[in-house]
Amino acid sequence: MKLASLRKGRDGALVVVSRNLKTASSAAPVAATMQEALDRWNEVEPALRALYEQLNAGTAKDAFEFDINNVAAPLPRSYQFLDGAAYASHITRNRRARGEQVPADFYEKPLVYQGISHGFMAWNETVPLPSDELGIDFEAEIFAVTDDVPMGVSPKDAVSHIKLFVLVNDISLRALIPAELKRTFGFLTGKPASSMGPIAVTPDELGELWNGELVSGTMNCWVRAEQIGSIETGKDTPFHYGHLISHVAQTRNFEPGSLVGLGTVSNEDDSAGCACIGEIRAKEVLRDGVAKTPLFAFGDEIRIEHVDRDGNLVFGRIQQTFAPINTLMPTEVE
Amino acid sequence: MKLASLRKGRDGALVVVSRNLKTASSAAPVAATMQEALDRWNEVEPALRALYEQLNAGTAKDAFEFDINNVAAPLPRSYQFLDGAAYASHITRNRRARGEQVPADFYEKPLVYQGISHGFMAWNETVPLPSDELGIDFEAEIFAVTDDVPMGVSPKDAVSHIKLFVLVNDISLRALIPAELKRTFGFLTGKPASSMGPIAVTPDELGELWNGELVSGTMNCWVRAEQIGSIETGKDTPFHYGHLISHVAQTRNFEPGSLVGLGTVSNEDDSAGCACIGEIRAKEVLRDGVAKTPLFAFGDEIRIEHVDRDGNLVFGRIQQTFAPINTLMPTEVE
Repeated sequence: MKLASLRKGRDGALVVVSRNLKTASSAAPVAATMQEALDRWNEVEPALRALYEQLNAGTAKDAFEFDINNVAAPLPRSYQFLDGAAYASHITRNRRARGEQVPADFYEKPLVYQGISHGFMAWNETVPLPSDELGIDFEAEIFAVTDDVPMGVSPKDAVSHIKLFVLVNDISLRALIPAELKRTFGFLTGKPASSMGPIAVTPDELGELWNGELVSGTMNCWVRAEQIGSIETGKDTPFHYGHLISHVAQTRNFEPGSLVGLGTVSNEDDSAGCACIGEIRAKEVLRDGVAKTPLFAFGDEIRIEHVDRDGNLVFGRIQQTFAPINTLMPTEVE
Repeated sequence: MKLASLRKGRDGALVVVSRNLKTASSAAPVAATMQEALDRWNEVEPALRALYEQLNAGTAKDAFEFDINNVAAPLPRSYQFLDGAAYASHITRNRRARGEQVPADFYEKPLVYQGISHGFMAWNETVPLPSDELGIDFEAEIFAVTDDVPMGVSPKDAVSHIKLFVLVNDISLRALIPAELKRTFGFLTGKPASSMGPIAVTPDELGELWNGELVSGTMNCWVRAEQIGSIETGKDTPFHYGHLISHVAQTRNFEPGSLVGLGTVSNEDDSAGCACIGEIRAKEVLRDGVAKTPLFAFGDEIRIEHVDRDGNLVFGRIQQTFAPINTLMPTEVE
């Protein structure tokens, strides 16, 4: 099943979208917003799936043409955002380039932080930031969206609480992060609001891309229209989604709509490129002693596409530019 | 104005409470939940205040007896929880006792982390945890609750976005925190869900306790029925609420209902005692070489009361015990 949120208010208006993304139908009779749906997922899922089948069969009564240019993030604000650094080559390259170590227990338990869980932008929205001297970067990731997760859940049981997956551009400010991490309290100002791909997809809809632990496929990334990465997402991490959820849930329950990511996707194979500029720059430092690829300036474009084995977009694309705050046109809101 | 949330669903049912806490009136005609009220604060505030005046005058039509034993946390789940370590003596004592340093830039900019913003328990709820060998501790704090905060707000303007204050018991697992901070990604499993005092209070209602920067008054704390702290909350921090909000808002907007705390209250004066057991233990280590006061075992009680100059409770009290998960009676929910 495929879901999206039209732009409306703070939480969007939930719609079910046909498999081919041609038509959509309001989910309002079942759940007005994505958060409402996730709060009562077991209760509403059958009705949403029935609507999805009708859309695909062309029999949905109130179907309308789906305009992917007019969506919000599928879940514009959430109660919990947990992001890992599970793809080992991402963090190994970054830390080595700045002369730092990967934590000694990196392979023993997942490295995860809790970050900003609100302000998610649409896939095509311009990203407002106070300055482009903060080291603006993207990070291409796939996040799981959970329902209620009980404290003490096992990694195996944890994956059954994944109800949706979304594509995320985890925007990062490289000039702020190293100093912030040195203070040991984790990421804060170095992680502004991020963006989501337009379509949230249920695990079953992923077919063979979802093996119950990781999402396979290829993450293609273009910076200033030049491709810098083509990463296989289903490998090169010692931890899967269930491990991360279980790790954090050792001492807490999760609210529905919790977002759990494995971090910037990255492959051990150098030729795959990277899913963020920072890692490209780290490789340049390690190879040449100096970073050459510039981080984003205002006006630059990032494009992220995660595709299946046939090259089809799985979650829709993310394609956006960066601009100073106060120069943006206000977002259209009904 | 005083607000509370009755136990109902995931977000509670918002009520306005009379100044003397004797009567309450449903806010549902204006806003069903605290989050809804905060999402539209400017629009709903006049109606809520009118109801408050009627309650205080005894003229509110649908007033009912307020039962403080049957409330939820005023805001059971929120989109953002930002907690500082602003009271310098708290962090100085803790770090010195474990042979670590306070970050070099501690006095230059506030030390803040983003933590668990959901699962807030009522003031009298038993705290479920997987084990009492995790070093269970409390931390007594006062949190500001904001409306929409714009990116780039100044410390001076930031305080105008504080709409409410609440009392928080920031529950901490001392056995997990030092190792977690060493990984540099901040607090996670070491900070389980916390509790809130029963009454959310507007800044104007605090009268002279609120000087536009800090909340004065005395934080009294009892561990296993023995008083361990009596802390003056309006001093001994280089940073106030506006500084913390402004610091984090450098690169993000806030959603309404964002919770911002200055950290465990603490005084430079040793005789004031402490607002967490960890700091008591740190002082014991520094003085005697060994910590004597035990952290919480299951069944132990914590009581926290923040009082004004006349000894009156400002936010209601927090009084709760700790128990293993799965042995608790289910919470009553309508």
